[in-house]
Amino acid sequence: MTEPHVTHRLAAAVPSAGRLQVRNPFDLSVIAKVDVVDRAGVDAALRVAIGLFRDRDAWLPAHARVAILQRTAELMRERAEWLATEATHEGGKPLSDSRIEIARAIDGIHNCAELLRNERGAQVPMGATAASAGRLAFTTHEPIGPVVAISAFNHPLNLVVHQVGPAVAAGCPVIIKPAEETPLSCFHFIDLLREAGLPAGWAQALITDEIATAEALATDPRVALLTFIGSARVGWHLRSRIAPGTRCTLEHGGVAPVIVDRRVDLDEVVPALAKGGFYHAGQVCVSVQRVFADRVIAEPLAQALAGAGLSMRVGNPLSEATDIGPLIRPAETERVHAWVQEAVHGGARLLCGGDTLTETCYAPTVLVDPPDGARVSTQEIFGPVIAVYHYDDLDRAIQRANALPYAFQAAVFTKDLGTALRAATRLDASAVMINDHTAFRVDWMPFAGLRQSGLGTGGIPYSFREMQIEKMLVLRSTGL
Amino acid sequence: MTEPHVTHRLAAAVPSAGRLQVRNPFDLSVIAKVDVVDRAGVDAALRVAIGLFRDRDAWLPAHARVAILQRTAELMRERAEWLATEATHEGGKPLSDSRIEIARAIDGIHNCAELLRNERGAQVPMGATAASAGRLAFTTHEPIGPVVAISAFNHPLNLVVHQVGPAVAAGCPVIIKPAEETPLSCFHFIDLLREAGLPAGWAQALITDEIATAEALATDPRVALLTFIGSARVGWHLRSRIAPGTRCTLEHGGVAPVIVDRRVDLDEVVPALAKGGFYHAGQVCVSVQRVFADRVIAEPLAQALAGAGLSMRVGNPLSEATDIGPLIRPAETERVHAWVQEAVHGGARLLCGGDTLTETCYAPTVLVDPPDGARVSTQEIFGPVIAVYHYDDLDRAIQRANALPYAFQAAVFTKDLGTALRAATRLDASAVMINDHTAFRVDWMPFAGLRQSGLGTGGIPYSFREMQIEKMLVLRSTGL
Amino acid sequence: MTEPHVTHRLAAAVPSAGRLQVRNPFDLSVIAKVDVVDRAGVDAALRVAIGLFRDRDAWLPAHARVAILQRTAELMRERAEWLATEATHEGGKPLSDSRIEIARAIDGIHNCAELLRNERGAQVPMGATAASAGRLAFTTHEPIGPVVAISAFNHPLNLVVHQVGPAVAAGCPVIIKPAEETPLSCFHFIDLLREAGLPAGWAQALITDEIATAEALATDPRVALLTFIGSARVGWHLRSRIAPGTRCTLEHGGVAPVIVDRRVDLDEVVPALAKGGFYHAGQVCVSVQRVFADRVIAEPLAQALAGAGLSMRVGNPLSEATDIGPLIRPAETERVHAWVQEAVHGGARLLCGGDTLTETCYAPTVLVDPPDGARVSTQEIFGPVIAVYHYDDLDRAIQRANALPYAFQAAVFTKDLGTALRAATRLDASAVMINDHTAFRVDWMPFAGLRQSGLGTGGIPYSFREMQIEKMLVLRSTGL
Amino acid sequence: MTEPHVTHRLAAAVPSAGRLQVRNPFDLSVIAKVDVVDRAGVDAALRVAIGLFRDRDAWLPAHARVAILQRTAELMRERAEWLATEATHEGGKPLSDSRIEIARAIDGIHNCAELLRNERGAQVPMGATAASAGRLAFTTHEPIGPVVAISAFNHPLNLVVHQVGPAVAAGCPVIIKPAEETPLSCFHFIDLLREAGLPAGWAQALITDEIATAEALATDPRVALLTFIGSARVGWHLRSRIAPGTRCTLEHGGVAPVIVDRRVDLDEVVPALAKGGFYHAGQVCVSVQRVFADRVIAEPLAQALAGAGLSMRVGNPLSEATDIGPLIRPAETERVHAWVQEAVHGGARLLCGGDTLTETCYAPTVLVDPPDGARVSTQEIFGPVIAVYHYDDLDRAIQRANALPYAFQAAVFTKDLGTALRAATRLDASAVMINDHTAFRVDWMPFAGLRQSGLGTGGIPYSFREMQIEKMLVLRSTGL
Repeated sequence: MTEPHVTHRLAAAVPSAGRLQVRNPFDLSVIAKVDVVDRAGVDAALRVAIGLFRDRDAWLPAHARVAILQRTAELMRERAEWLATEATHEGGKPLSDSRIEIARAIDGIHNCAELLRNERGAQVPMGATAASAGRLAFTTHEPIGPVVAISAFNHPLNLVVHQVGPAVAAGCPVIIKPAEETPLSCFHFIDLLREAGLPAGWAQALITDEIATAEALATDPRVALLTFIGSARVGWHLRSRIAPGTRCTLEHGGVAPVIVDRRVDLDEVVPALAKGGFYHAGQVCVSVQRVFADRVIAEPLAQALAGAGLSMRVGNPLSEATDIGPLIRPAETERVHAWVQEAVHGGARLLCGGDTLTETCYAPTVLVDPPDGARVSTQEIFGPVIAVYHYDDLDRAIQRANALPYAFQAAVFTKDLGTALRAATRLDASAVMINDHTAFRVDWMPFAGLRQSGLGTGGIPYSFREMQIEKMLVLRSTGL
Repeated sequence: MTEPHVTHRLAAAVPSAGRLQVRNPFDLSVIAKVDVVDRAGVDAALRVAIGLFRDRDAWLPAHARVAILQRTAELMRERAEWLATEATHEGGKPLSDSRIEIARAIDGIHNCAELLRNERGAQVPMGATAASAGRLAFTTHEPIGPVVAISAFNHPLNLVVHQVGPAVAAGCPVIIKPAEETPLSCFHFIDLLREAGLPAGWAQALITDEIATAEALATDPRVALLTFIGSARVGWHLRSRIAPGTRCTLEHGGVAPVIVDRRVDLDEVVPALAKGGFYHAGQVCVSVQRVFADRVIAEPLAQALAGAGLSMRVGNPLSEATDIGPLIRPAETERVHAWVQEAVHGGARLLCGGDTLTETCYAPTVLVDPPDGARVSTQEIFGPVIAVYHYDDLDRAIQRANALPYAFQAAVFTKDLGTALRAATRLDASAVMINDHTAFRVDWMPFAGLRQSGLGTGGIPYSFREMQIEKMLVLRSTGL
Repeated sequence: MTEPHVTHRLAAAVPSAGRLQVRNPFDLSVIAKVDVVDRAGVDAALRVAIGLFRDRDAWLPAHARVAILQRTAELMRERAEWLATEATHEGGKPLSDSRIEIARAIDGIHNCAELLRNERGAQVPMGATAASAGRLAFTTHEPIGPVVAISAFNHPLNLVVHQVGPAVAAGCPVIIKPAEETPLSCFHFIDLLREAGLPAGWAQALITDEIATAEALATDPRVALLTFIGSARVGWHLRSRIAPGTRCTLEHGGVAPVIVDRRVDLDEVVPALAKGGFYHAGQVCVSVQRVFADRVIAEPLAQALAGAGLSMRVGNPLSEATDIGPLIRPAETERVHAWVQEAVHGGARLLCGGDTLTETCYAPTVLVDPPDGARVSTQEIFGPVIAVYHYDDLDRAIQRANALPYAFQAAVFTKDLGTALRAATRLDASAVMINDHTAFRVDWMPFAGLRQSGLGTGGIPYSFREMQIEKMLVLRSTGL
Repeated sequence: MTEPHVTHRLAAAVPSAGRLQVRNPFDLSVIAKVDVVDRAGVDAALRVAIGLFRDRDAWLPAHARVAILQRTAELMRERAEWLATEATHEGGKPLSDSRIEIARAIDGIHNCAELLRNERGAQVPMGATAASAGRLAFTTHEPIGPVVAISAFNHPLNLVVHQVGPAVAAGCPVIIKPAEETPLSCFHFIDLLREAGLPAGWAQALITDEIATAEALATDPRVALLTFIGSARVGWHLRSRIAPGTRCTLEHGGVAPVIVDRRVDLDEVVPALAKGGFYHAGQVCVSVQRVFADRVIAEPLAQALAGAGLSMRVGNPLSEATDIGPLIRPAETERVHAWVQEAVHGGARLLCGGDTLTETCYAPTVLVDPPDGARVSTQEIFGPVIAVYHYDDLDRAIQRANALPYAFQAAVFTKDLGTALRAATRLDASAVMINDHTAFRVDWMPFAGLRQSGLGTGGIPYSFREMQIEKMLVLRSTGL
């Protein structure tokens, strides 16, 4: 049997510049070959996008966008199981988790449609000074222009929905480059949009032949907004290269810290931390990574976490029984292992895991007190590894949590109101979960990496706003 | 020496319909005689107000209102000590507390001025359905029309500021009837507004010859909004009598409940409760009245509260040393005493107070476990009396707290996050203070009696909104 | 064939207190018999409602309410044609218009579900004064309590959706009394809610045996909020009778004014005015009734309106060809005719209509210059009658438009910016349509009768807010 | 007499790295010598800033910031005339205009203080899905960290107030580098903040020895936010150089377009355009530059504009009679002249001006139909030059207005509603003034260059938000 051949989703005829193999990350079998495009393909996509945007008579009215999005959500619901299987197939997330991802993606599309009647401009008060008397002013929103989206592999459908859905809702032509590992979910989502009535030029998808071509896409001066999900290194580099006038939002990762006070119930804390650290093999940008535990509770907490790790079933993500699937690439398994070994050599105690199970799967790992300078303590591991550190003083623990140049989501577990509020206000983060893990999320929440963890705010309503300009109309008239 | 004769602040010439004596509530000496008006006076005031409102060319532009309010605040600041002394003289609140009242009133006027550039309408989304395409819509605010304000004695200046200030800011002609006991602060505030440039018709003040005349004012069909601060009995009666089309906001009192968990530090709780229960001799509509304390902590809490009560200096409010002044009328002292006696006869333990100190002053009183049916347990005492009840079960304590038809502000003291949130979400109240007393307040907070405790929301920004209509403009044009 | 027998939708077993005949308003045939309840039935319904509300553990979580509402919308979509036919059968609105009503009702239920993730409380700033330092405060929403809804006949399903939908979304137990003429659509909507999973006590419907029983329902002290749609006379009467503590919102009608400037295109104005005045035989509370036209344009406008009226097909609303159906009761036909005759006798010119076509149908009628004191000039006609008045001066026309004690929606037609803004700002109304008729509406718009036209604001998001209290939590902690 | 020697406003002792001469731009006399700092000075300033920010116990409470800002405004008011004279002396804006600038700056500081009680976070709805049940979430704001501000010369005090004021309000340590031409107003504003009680480290000001030092300041990784006002070339260059994690807002200029329809009153249009184009010799980033006029009105409009230009008095800005002062540097006069000559050689008609009056003053100039490719048609002139172009078709005029890569504020003059709305919705701009010039502004309006005209939104409330992070707290508890 030969694997299917998948072509890009562009609005113009663009010749293929080669083919990319998409592999099942668990068994490394090839599941598809995907056409890639070169700079000519990128230019063709951009020409369509800017052409549509410049022709205001070509814009889709809001009610048409609402109808397309609602119909897309219906189509997704009809094909939900198929979409979940595909996402697991290419991305390696256990099927039960992919089902949840699809359900959230469907809800996300509904949310996009709703925004068109829920988001609104505001009056700008006039008249409070004599110079502004006799006027009425208010703001309204317009699409910002062509959007380029670069996406990541860890939620093959839902990340794409978060980037493309708001663009469609806002009326921006969008060109998305999904992760090379997971193009299929993206391409099929574009198909559903078109089946639901979206003209092709409003949402295009492609994979580029090389990194420089992707960079050419991102830095083209016709791009109004670049929305990037991926590594901090690439993201900030792109920010330095985009054209004057282009806006960008970046969503990177962190090294998410958790404070565990002594006044907790371990039966509540441990499942939350295990979920937050091991879900999708830790390949989430707000995964629990650094757990600072009050000395009184640290050892039993670490032991219980190790117990939870040991009980998890690692393996084929298409199996209903699997808790944790593979890492996205064999090289990632090696990298994670090297970091763990570095920590152990530096003095960390290894309570569970610490080894590869197959070429692609890594065992859930709990480390106690790795050195502050080790990579597991300073960089995003993006693997199923939790480090537990003791602390004697809350404020000092908060300082350690805040010591890195990353700041995204954080957590504190405690029954004590004062401790909860002190940690919540003092932790460097855009979101602090009180008695929940760092990766807790509903899709309409803001989602904002601070410092080097990102730029701008994600979450569907927030992306919708970033994809629009706010235009003020000041009405002056002798009638007033 | 004869006391001064004070006349009403109306915009039209209105003959006096008699004189009212204003007395110092501490020593009952007469400090002023105030002209009262009859129905003809009320009608004259209303004619001016409706005439101004109907003539849109007579409206003051927003910048003029801002300038008048800012100038008023400056004048108040210049005369702050004088205003504090006057408020204490007629209202009996200790001078140090009156100074705070004046400072807050000044800030309130600044807040009124700010609102004109901070409050705003909103766009109303159009186009999300085909039937609404081709339109732009937004809302703006306009004054609602003539406002009648009926005020209370316990904050002679600041309540008036909360009722008249937003009306001036919003552009509504306002007629205020202050409490008969405390007209002077009100009348002088009106003077300051006029000195600051407000034409007389936009803010008028009067005292009526009899209750029926006040009711005639409140129920006149020319009134767009009645804002009433006072007893629930009178307020709800007025609501049933006002004219079709007239809006009303009512601010009554409650029988404010407090939950005290065992996980507290009494050194923090007791001063807060003593302040919340004894401030201004308890003559505040959100005074601490019913304290439900965990059995473990109830007795030491009650004893410490009694100690706090005993240490307070009760007497002449014009003395710098005084903590608590008189009740507003001798009859009130008698009423409070009767309620306390009823409780004691019903089985309550009296830990301190429980007696009149002079004809006008009542000793700070702490009762333990008065009967559930006693008036101190069911009606607003409006005196310096705190009742402490034991509880064994939090949910049962919350049920008892919620058992009355009043609901205004409530409080819970605890260091436990779960207890704090459970009480906060389950207490029947528009505001729950966690680790603070029920009377905590900043003037820009919402302030809303629920159920029989009131109607609508007070607080300067909220009153400003109630005094305006929100008008939507839907622009349809072939240009869109 | 015997007509069906329909029983009330209560959660408790309540014996019938008689039966009411529901008639087809076009041919007056009996289409159903409906059980009515007496005071015992009302009390049973209220006992269920208050019991559910008082037992917080019985509350439905928000996600359950979302799921129920979404399922309800699906069920409505499946049965849309049936619902439209039923609404036409009992209410007399032409079938094509009923189909639109049902579509809007379905969308309204979606809107209710969305509100639960779109409506939100706000932080209350603390710390701007020293007295408020060390605190965090924010508001959240809770259901207000049992809601009683009294509804009208002119949109048998969509009005019920606007009253019951937000109550279900907000978590309030609701009891609705639909119009006696149109109970079937309401009862079946309640059935759909229950089929979608809503426990019976959360939404009950009934018809009362007599008016006094309905009043007993509205004025019971257990009612937290009365939402009333109907005549101003009844509404304001109820406001004067409801219990202390009960809130109410009233939606009455107006005598909607339109200004038509000379700078217009009659081809755009006339269809809009004909639609706004004759839709559903004028039985809409914001129907176009009084058209003030610049003298230059008045006569051709009136003639063209008459032409539009003459071209409309009046008759059986179940026929696809019908533009205008019957009035709701024969007595209404007579009343409308009497008002028209009074106007003609007073000097109005009759350009078209002016007569009954059948016992139940009235011809679309255009009157020119009826006397200012005639009932067609001063009271809501609720029939297919438009009066056209000449004007020479815009401001004088606005004054006439504003001269009645009603103020709801108004309109101005003009291409001139200054005229548009002058009319929009000076017309007494909660909404002014610029170049559209007074009855233009999307369901998420605010909808607020001012002065005697109503109290509070309708529209789904606004009703949702009125059915909730805003509760502030002030967190004070040494941790801050 | 020797000119005063002025030193930098840093919190640490930093040796001077040289001196810069500040000249009166009208007569080029030296009015001060200002110390400059090198990289060591920049580093010292940043060390203080980051040190304060990292030490949360050193943060100023909000009420202290409010008090400092209010006191600063008072000091500014006391010294308003002196500040206006200084601003004119160094910046060349006519004294009467500087007085207005100072008044606005004072109001801006009041606005900053108000924000602390008017800006607020929001609840984030929880519970609408089962996965988010049992939680309460809301957002609050925290300072973003050290702010570096680079400012421009054209409003020497008010721009500084717009950059430093919100930083002080938000609690961010700020380091400002004013324009080299106008450091004095900035330094004295810093003095007033300190006199009002602001500790020195929270607001520092400096001039650098060379451009590379300024760039080192802007690109240091300790900077949380760079706020830049100045040329697009420099701004976008800095965006490409700032450190990963640093945010930036840029405020550049545009080539502001105006559409003038035939349906206007020239007596209203001409003064507005002359004000918008010639105010401060056109040295405003939203100055009127390109006027597209309906052919019917173009010639009389251009002639009347020329008449207005000829009537303006150009000269010494310290003279009360002066309408227009010098350009900021002699080189600017030459540049403006070269652009005008290029246009004339390309075929533009010169109606007035077109020449230097002194080494530093340029005559108000009106050009008719310069070539589309001329610099006056494509680049920001920043001089007193208005170009008038004919148009025959509105949509084509809008296309020409939108043809440049800049988009900031635009305007349309018309009495026709359709034309007003069509231009307002179709012009590429963040603000469209209807019947007012492009430079209309009140300080609380948003102010946002789009495309290459800027990044982020200015205006005091908007800058305040950009200087804060929004932090979400998700409270999960079994108590809920």
